[in-house]
Amino acid sequence: MITKEKIYQMINDCKVSIISSVDSDGYPNTKAMLAPRKIDYDKNEFYFTTNTSSMRVGQYADNPKACVYFYQKGRFKYQGVMIIGTMEVLTDTESKNDIWRVGDTMFYKQGVSDPDYCVLKFKGYKCKYYCDFKHYWVDIE
Amino acid sequence: MITKEKIYQMINDCKVSIISSVDSDGYPNTKAMLAPRKIDYDKNEFYFTTNTSSMRVGQYADNPKACVYFYQKGRFKYQGVMIIGTMEVLTDTESKNDIWRVGDTMFYKQGVSDPDYCVLKFKGYKCKYYCDFKHYWVDIE
Repeated sequence: MITKEKIYQMINDCKVSIISSVDSDGYPNTKAMLAPRKIDYDKNEFYFTTNTSSMRVGQYADNPKACVYFYQKGRFKYQGVMIIGTMEVLTDTESKNDIWRVGDTMFYKQGVSDPDYCVLKFKGYKCKYYCDFKHYWVDIE
Repeated sequence: MITKEKIYQMINDCKVSIISSVDSDGYPNTKAMLAPRKIDYDKNEFYFTTNTSSMRVGQYADNPKACVYFYQKGRFKYQGVMIIGTMEVLTDTESKNDIWRVGDTMFYKQGVSDPDYCVLKFKGYKCKYYCDFKHYWVDIE
C-alpha cells in the first residue's frame, strides 16, 4: 500500500498541477498550472500563484470546492493522485510575500503588491491514488 | 487567433486526456485517461473506454456535467484546451464494438461483451484555449 509520504514525494517531482473548480452552471472546469510554490505536508495545504482577474479566481470565490491532481506517466508505469478539498483566494500582503519569487516581476509588473497577483491556497482532506489499473483512497489527515 | 481545426490537431497529438466530473458532494473530481479512441470533429464528440464499475462512471450517471482538458508543455510553449460539455455512459453492443481494439482483452477478459467494459461519450459545446499567458473562448459549434 502507498503511504501519504510517498504520495507527497511523487507530488514534489511533478512540474504540473491540474486544478479543478465548479463553474456557476455546475460544470467542472480544469486547468494546468505550475507546481505549487509551497506545500504544507502536515496540513495538506498547497499554495499557488495566480492572476486575481482570472476566471478561476472568480469561480473559487463563489464556490471553494476544488480538487488538485498530479500524475506521472512513465514508459511502464502510470501514477496519479487526486486530492479533494477547498480553495481559498488570498490577497493579503503576508500571504503574497510568502510565496513571491524575484522572477515573478516578469508576470506582475508592479511586484508583490500588484493587484493582479494573488495566492490560491488549497486545503485537501481526501486523497485517491491511482497506479496502473489499481486505485484506492489514502488517509492523509 | 486559433481555430477549431488547430485545436483538434493539438488534441490529436496528446497522449493523455484529463477528464473531470462533479461528485455527489459537489466537488470536482479529475483523472488522467488515455487519449480518446475516437473523435467526431463536426459534433465535438469524444469516445473513451472505461470500467463500468469505476467511480467516474457512477458520477456521470448521476450528473453528466463534465469537462475534458488537453495540454502540451514544451520547453518554450504551453498550450491547453478545456472543453465543457456532458458525458454519457454507453453500454450498448454497437457503441462498445465501435471503439474496441484487439489488445483490450488484456483489460477486459471477456472481450467486447465484458460487463465491466463500457464507453464514455463526451459531447462538448464550449471551448477555452490557453497559450502561455493568454486565453480565450473559441467557437466550436
